[in-house]
Order: sequence, then C-alpha cells, then structure tokens
Amino acid sequence: MRRTLEVAVVNGSMKRTDTEAVMEPLSLVSRREGLGSLADRLGEIQSWLAKDLGTLEALLESSANVEGDLAERAAAHLLERPGKRIRPLCVVLASKLGDGLDEDDRAAIENLAAAAELVHAATLLHDDVIDLGTERRGAPTARLLFGNPASVLGGDHLLVEALRRVRSAGHDRLLGKLLDVVGEMVAAEAIQLERRGRFEADREAYLNVVRGKTAVLFEWSMIAGGTVAGLDGDALARLGRAGIQTGIAFQMVDDTLDLAESAGDTGKDTLLDLREGKLTWPLIIASERDPSLVEDFQAIADDPGRLDEGDFVGELRQRIVATGCVSATLERAISWAQDARSEISFLPEGPARRALETVIDISVRRTL
Amino acid sequence: MRRTLEVAVVNGSMKRTDTEAVMEPLSLVSRREGLGSLADRLGEIQSWLAKDLGTLEALLESSANVEGDLAERAAAHLLERPGKRIRPLCVVLASKLGDGLDEDDRAAIENLAAAAELVHAATLLHDDVIDLGTERRGAPTARLLFGNPASVLGGDHLLVEALRRVRSAGHDRLLGKLLDVVGEMVAAEAIQLERRGRFEADREAYLNVVRGKTAVLFEWSMIAGGTVAGLDGDALARLGRAGIQTGIAFQMVDDTLDLAESAGDTGKDTLLDLREGKLTWPLIIASERDPSLVEDFQAIADDPGRLDEGDFVGELRQRIVATGCVSATLERAISWAQDARSEISFLPEGPARRALETVIDISVRRTL
Repeated sequence: MRRTLEVAVVNGSMKRTDTEAVMEPLSLVSRREGLGSLADRLGEIQSWLAKDLGTLEALLESSANVEGDLAERAAAHLLERPGKRIRPLCVVLASKLGDGLDEDDRAAIENLAAAAELVHAATLLHDDVIDLGTERRGAPTARLLFGNPASVLGGDHLLVEALRRVRSAGHDRLLGKLLDVVGEMVAAEAIQLERRGRFEADREAYLNVVRGKTAVLFEWSMIAGGTVAGLDGDALARLGRAGIQTGIAFQMVDDTLDLAESAGDTGKDTLLDLREGKLTWPLIIASERDPSLVEDFQAIADDPGRLDEGDFVGELRQRIVATGCVSATLERAISWAQDARSEISFLPEGPARRALETVIDISVRRTL
Repeated sequence: MRRTLEVAVVNGSMKRTDTEAVMEPLSLVSRREGLGSLADRLGEIQSWLAKDLGTLEALLESSANVEGDLAERAAAHLLERPGKRIRPLCVVLASKLGDGLDEDDRAAIENLAAAAELVHAATLLHDDVIDLGTERRGAPTARLLFGNPASVLGGDHLLVEALRRVRSAGHDRLLGKLLDVVGEMVAAEAIQLERRGRFEADREAYLNVVRGKTAVLFEWSMIAGGTVAGLDGDALARLGRAGIQTGIAFQMVDDTLDLAESAGDTGKDTLLDLREGKLTWPLIIASERDPSLVEDFQAIADDPGRLDEGDFVGELRQRIVATGCVSATLERAISWAQDARSEISFLPEGPARRALETVIDISVRRTL
C-alpha cells in the first residue's frame, strides 16, 4: 500500500533528510494557515455542504448497484470506497459563486457533480487493467476481485452513467466539453503508455500528460459548476484555468507519494510509478540534479524486474530523495496552487470563494 | 480463422449431413430471390450509395489516425479492415425513407452512420480484451498487435468519437438513446461474462443477451436514419422493431459459423463460443434435442481445456451438428428476418425499402 510522506514522518520511518525535505514546503502552507486550520476548514466545508455531499453519495450508489451485474459490482466496489470527492466538490462550490440556484439548477448540479466523480472512477477502472494495479484506496483493485474483463466493463458502465447524467443536466455545451475531456484523458493515457520503455526527463511532455490525465477534469468540474451558476465567459475561463492549475498541483503531490517508504520491509510498492514507466515530476528533477540516475531509470524502463533485485529499490530511493526532488516538487505544486488562488481572486469574498481556496490548498495536502 | 458454412460447403470439406443441414434453410432465401440475386442486389445498393459509403470510410479514417497515438493506432487497425458496414447501411437507408434530406440532414446522417460503426468497433476492441480474442476480420486482433492496454484505450477512444459525432448531428434524443444502447451493450456483455462456467440452455436468457449485445444497435441505427428523414413515431417504432429482429437474425447466423469446420486440421478455432462460455442458439437447440450433450457442455464450461484433448472437438462438433441444430437455427434466423420484412411492409414501394429488405436478407446470408 502506498503511504503518504506525512504518515511516514509521523511513524518515524523516514530518515532525517527525508523529513526535512517534506516538512519544509508543507510548512509554507501551514504558515499561511496555522497548523491544523486546513483540516478545520475542510470540516467546515463538509458541514456546510452536508446535504449536497449526501445527495452525491446517493447518486454514486445508484450509478453502480452492489447487487447489479458484474460490471456494476466491479464499479460499485470502487465507488463505495471513501474518496475525497474533490472533483464533485469543485462542481458544487463553483455553482455557489452566482446569484443562487433554482430547483432545476440544483438537480443539474447534483448530476454534474456525480458525473465528475464517475468519469474519474471509470478511468481508474481502466487504468488498473492497463497497469495491472493491485491496490486502490486501501483495498484490492476491482480487477483483482472481479477480473480484468469486469473492470473494463465496469469502466464502460460508469462512463455511460456519467454522460447520461450530464445530458440530463440539460447544458449541451457541458456534454460536448466532457466528451472532449474524456478524449484528452484517453490520449494522455495512450501517450503515457507509449512512453514506457524509455526514460526521458522532459518537463513539457510531463505537463502535457498531466494536463490530459488529471487537470482537464478539474477544469471541467469548475466550469460545469460555474456555468449552472450563470457566470460570464471571462469568469468561467478564469475558473477553468484555476482548475487546470489545481489539477497539476494535485498530480505533482501524488507523484511525491511514490517516493514514500512503503509499509513493509520489502519496499515492493515504492517507486511504483517508475516500475510502471510513468514519468513523474520528482524523477525529472532528480535526474536533472543527479545525472547518474538517468542510467538507472533507463535500465528500469528496459527491465522493471531490476527493481526486485536485493536492496536496489531502497538504495535508489535514497539517491532520488537525496537530490531534494521531493521538496522541489512540493514547492512547485504549491506554486501551481498559488497561481490557482490568484486566478480566482477576482471572485467576491464569501464562503464559496473561501471554500474553493480550501479545496485548492487541499490539493497540496493530500493526506487530509 | 473462422470460416463460414458456405465456404466449407464450396470446398467440399463438410460431411453430407452437414451440407444438407445448411443448404436447406439457405434455399428458402434462394428460392425467394433466385441464386445470386442477393449478391446482385447488394451490388446495386453499393453503387447507389457509393457517395455515402465513400464519405463513411473517410469519416472512419479520420476517427482513428493510423499515425496517431497508441489508442488511435489500435482502433485504426480494426477500422481499416474491410467490414460489411451493415449498421451504417441501416442508418443511411432509413434516412432515404422520407421526403428528402437537406444539406444539414445529410451531414447529420454521415455522422450518425459513422457513429453506428464506431460504437460497434469500440465494443469489439473491449470484447477482444475480455475474451482474449486472437483474430478478427481475418487479421490478428488489435490487442495482439498493440497490447491489451492499447485495445482498452482504443475502445474508449472510439466510443468518445462516436458520441461526439452523434452530438454534432444535433438530434439530442438520438444521443440519449445511444447512451442507453451502449449501457445495454455493456450490461449484456457483463451478463454473458458472468454466465461463464455454467451451461444453461435458456432461450429467454439467450434472447436477452443477444438483444443487448447486438440487436439494440441495429434498432438505434434504423431509428437514427428514420428520425433525420422526419418519419413519424409509429414509423420509427416499426423501423426500430425491424432493427431488433434483424439484429437477432444476424446474431443467430453468426452463432452457426462457430460450428463450421475450421481451416486447419487442428480444429482449434471450432467451438470458440463454447470455449468462451457463450450461450448460442444452436447449442441450446442441440442440448434440447440430444440431452447427453449437456454433460459435455457443462464439463467444458467447468474446464475449457477439455476442448484441447485429442479428437474431442471434432467428435463433439459432429454430435452437435447431427442434431440438426444448424439447420434449425438458420430457419429460426430466417423467421426473424421475415418478421423484420413484415414490419417494414408499411413503407411505400421504392428503392429505399427494397434496399432495406436486401440488408435484412443479408443478415441471414453472412457470407456476402
């Protein structure tokens, strides 16, 4: 199981240098907020949105019945695991930026918020088949429990459910845009897949893939909420950009989690991204700062089995972390999050804007 | 490679009883049409629709670039194999049943026809991953050439392309209906998958699965063309029913192809449906007529490896064919096709109706 760096810190399992590398950038957020205040603010949002979030969970449940066919059961297994629901949160919060919603608008927002999570879940079910993933959200993957075929069909089922919900929300442009988003997500996965077998520390290539696989769905979520709220084109464009920036920040922090020490002594799950041939920001930084790593990264790209040899993983991980790449990546993520905050600074002060800022901050504090 | 019964007949590779079993029901069609006339009529339609079919191929090509990303290349590999394009033909022909199309209508039909083929191709790419298929349209499957992950992503890509094209056609109800269709297709695949491991000669279960996996897309194709042609609700309902009936006939004939002798001496590809745990109409009939077969079918369901033992496949195939189930299935398929013809008999005489009747007849003459 992947564990977060913070958990590793709390458990004292990290070396001193690792701990410093992690705590320094996180303290940038903490300094602004006061330790613990982010968790409090998230709690406030969750209370404020209790009704919306309850409806969301009910809709997700009805989208994949645990007693349905094999595709539905595979999908339900993933959906019923607790998640942050950060994409639906973006939809709901952006919808509260206008002059209020009527009953139809509220129904539309419920469906759009559910759709954002369903598209995300659909891609996870397919990604796990592609990467032969074994664990997701602290449980065995659907493909392990129900088989690869069920995971493929479960993803198809959820994608159709998502699109139905967006169609029923009655904003045709949002449906067209979501189809474009799914197209970009598929293309990004295909490009990532095709890059397997070669290590190339290419920042632009990384950002293109991350834009497609993560950021465009955040962008859509923001725009979907803002559209129903009746915001004008300029406001929607700014919200969309904030979504892109939040998504990139979110993915960069996710990248760093791959460098946490794993739970067991085997180190089996550390460097999973490297094993799967995924280019991550900290690996790019590490290879720029310590060019001798490039050879190892390429050797692993040629033969991921190298990672199973003796102490190789643990030693490699140490060399990677020693470059300070985790710290640098978290700083970069925080910088993206700050851009996102600036982008929405045009919004009037109020609970919705404050909540959106919290969601942006959460994207760089993935342990909450 | 699967070969058709007719090819087997032509090559003299079938035993006399097999030949009779096949030729008798086909002669029902032949008697009505005169031998060879169906091929002539298909040729006429293809000349008549040369422009539409040319546009269709161009749209399919633009939907998955052979020089695109890995997902597109996997999809293009399948799309560029010649196919009957029978679903797009249904769209185009049904569109010619009204009082004529304006330029927008013609653009809509092009996109709807392409979408019908793209949805079909998307499900094939996912099905081949699910069934570990090795051959499709006389070539290795995309998953063999590009890998399972590329085939999953290729299917996702084509589904998105199809939905985009339907959305651009501007008939919102057709988009909603296509989402329902894809949902039914996924559910039918899931049910079929879940039935693996047990043999149950259940006609109703068979028809439910076939309705979902094949017939509803034929139904949609007819209704899509008819909608743009401006037909009224009653006419659309009849066309839709004819689509369902044609799809069932089409699938039943497909089922019989699994009982043809294979090209090589190994018999490796005979009884592939049985190997994959798929319930087919001829197997239901065979087990009803010769209950001793049920035990063998269940043994194969428990362990498909049984089919690799010695002469087992060849002997089992002989016992199945000896029940006359191929003939019975082809008769049943022809009966469904006749129902479809009756359903569209309300249409005024003319080239469009005659062409639709030909398409229905083609569904039970799969070798054309």
